[in-house]
Amino acid sequence: MVDFSSAFRDQPVLITGGLGFIGSNLARRLADVGAKVTVIDSLIPEYGGKQFNLHGYENRVRINIADVRDEYSMNYLVRGQAYLFNLAGQVSHLDSMHNPYTDLDINCRSQLSILEACRKHNPNIRIVFSGTRQIYGKPRYLPVDERHPVGPVDVNGVNKLAGEWYHLVYQKAYGLKTTSLRLTNTYGPRMRVVDARQTFLGLWLRRLIEGQEIWVYGDGEQKRDLNYIEDVLEALLLAATHPDAVGQIFNLGGDEVLSLSALAELMVELNGSGRWRRVPFPDEQKAIDIGDYCGDYGLIQYKLGWRPRTPLREGLAHTLAYYRAHHAEYW
Amino acid sequence: MVDFSSAFRDQPVLITGGLGFIGSNLARRLADVGAKVTVIDSLIPEYGGKQFNLHGYENRVRINIADVRDEYSMNYLVRGQAYLFNLAGQVSHLDSMHNPYTDLDINCRSQLSILEACRKHNPNIRIVFSGTRQIYGKPRYLPVDERHPVGPVDVNGVNKLAGEWYHLVYQKAYGLKTTSLRLTNTYGPRMRVVDARQTFLGLWLRRLIEGQEIWVYGDGEQKRDLNYIEDVLEALLLAATHPDAVGQIFNLGGDEVLSLSALAELMVELNGSGRWRRVPFPDEQKAIDIGDYCGDYGLIQYKLGWRPRTPLREGLAHTLAYYRAHHAEYW
Repeated sequence: MVDFSSAFRDQPVLITGGLGFIGSNLARRLADVGAKVTVIDSLIPEYGGKQFNLHGYENRVRINIADVRDEYSMNYLVRGQAYLFNLAGQVSHLDSMHNPYTDLDINCRSQLSILEACRKHNPNIRIVFSGTRQIYGKPRYLPVDERHPVGPVDVNGVNKLAGEWYHLVYQKAYGLKTTSLRLTNTYGPRMRVVDARQTFLGLWLRRLIEGQEIWVYGDGEQKRDLNYIEDVLEALLLAATHPDAVGQIFNLGGDEVLSLSALAELMVELNGSGRWRRVPFPDEQKAIDIGDYCGDYGLIQYKLGWRPRTPLREGLAHTLAYYRAHHAEYW
Repeated sequence: MVDFSSAFRDQPVLITGGLGFIGSNLARRLADVGAKVTVIDSLIPEYGGKQFNLHGYENRVRINIADVRDEYSMNYLVRGQAYLFNLAGQVSHLDSMHNPYTDLDINCRSQLSILEACRKHNPNIRIVFSGTRQIYGKPRYLPVDERHPVGPVDVNGVNKLAGEWYHLVYQKAYGLKTTSLRLTNTYGPRMRVVDARQTFLGLWLRRLIEGQEIWVYGDGEQKRDLNYIEDVLEALLLAATHPDAVGQIFNLGGDEVLSLSALAELMVELNGSGRWRRVPFPDEQKAIDIGDYCGDYGLIQYKLGWRPRTPLREGLAHTLAYYRAHHAEYW
């Protein structure tokens, strides 16, 4: 594991979506290495933000409640920061189909205004954007590398694609130091588990701990790869500090690719109890399902030396333990 | 040339951007085969729309002045239409960098609201969207086919990419009958020539006819392909009527690929007078320049039987003749 203390000690760092799953874990990690962290979050109830995610860090992290759609606040908040982890987003695929304009405002328009703010007020800031494998849509080949054609299957995928490319355009045209990571399914403590808005896995964790049945859509043979949160933090920190990361797009990906049925089976086993079964795909879900997916992380491995290190069993066990201890805070 | 009379006679057809270059030529062509054409245009001065473009057709085409950002009007206007040619857009690359929000509203948000209007009020309409080669950015290989990775170099390219993909998402998720054509440089009568907002070629035509020097940026060796308007109309009409076009993205492309210097030389020759010279790239232009481009139109040739038919010399000669006759209307 790279030691990031020298890069981040006493450095001002801004994290949008900083009370959410990835943002809060990142804020804690950065505070631990001595960074001066400000998190921005709007705490929209349906999204992933939660004050409890920074429990124990309230005095070490500055929490600024604001919406990334609020241009004036963003204009002010980006000033003087050395790093921006731009993680705020509307993440629900179904919500993006029901309310495409909200998704557009958060995932496209706000990205433009954050970049405009940086260009005007802080052109030397390092910016890491959280992109998503969702933009590839239904894969044409596996594992999916960065050369795979894009083909989003829902409005969220289209808007995340645009949001990512604004970052690249601002790098090429204005020299902003931006990087995008295309995340695959990320899991771990502090993920949203109240429903399936962030990922199906969140809801599975909740149902398992509640003693309810896990539902797997379709035949359950859809393959997925997963990344544990600590590995994703490593990638974010590398992307923010490595000189070869500027202007790049990198896929993340997991080494253990497994079917949803196998994942459900494994989770029941690790939990020591529980059950799962296959149910027919709801029509709405079927329309935007992407079949099998796994990411090729060869480029970030080659350029930045990243690879996932946490075995799936270990990551899932940690995650289950976290929610068994803290479920009262999460649902 | 395919006979489109039977497909379009007495059919209600809506054209957004219908007073612009491509839209007005399409409206004239469709009126000629007996379609009941409504054009929508906002006549924003910096864009390509012009009442004169429908000169002689004022009684055969219904002209409705409205902005595609106006959701209520669009909701009403899409009803009862058999075809929608969705051509309205902000097209200037530089304007998109100076005012990214306007570009976003027109090229992304309006596309969403047009598709929402169709989904709710006219789900059986055939929709053809005018995409652009701009989304590929600086080509990694030539000629560029549809599998080429996207890599827009300006905000306009990002937004046009999103606008195109909304069309595909609404096809896959809701069954709307949409098709996108990725146009390359299109030229011909009724193009915007007052400045270089629509294409450099417009300004070249104007300067040549005014007896002014044409400026070619850089060494002038940048390669381009061009499509004459009549060939593009053929592609649009095929895309709207061919059963295999639904849900597809097709590149257009030209057979005669030439450098900007060679093009300038040819235009001077065809004009019978004039001169051109190389000038250094303005910084702003250089930042978003894409180098060489030519499109591979193999897919639309295979699936719909389209190919460009107008020789460049012939198309340019027609275009020059048009602007010599009508320049008083255009600048």
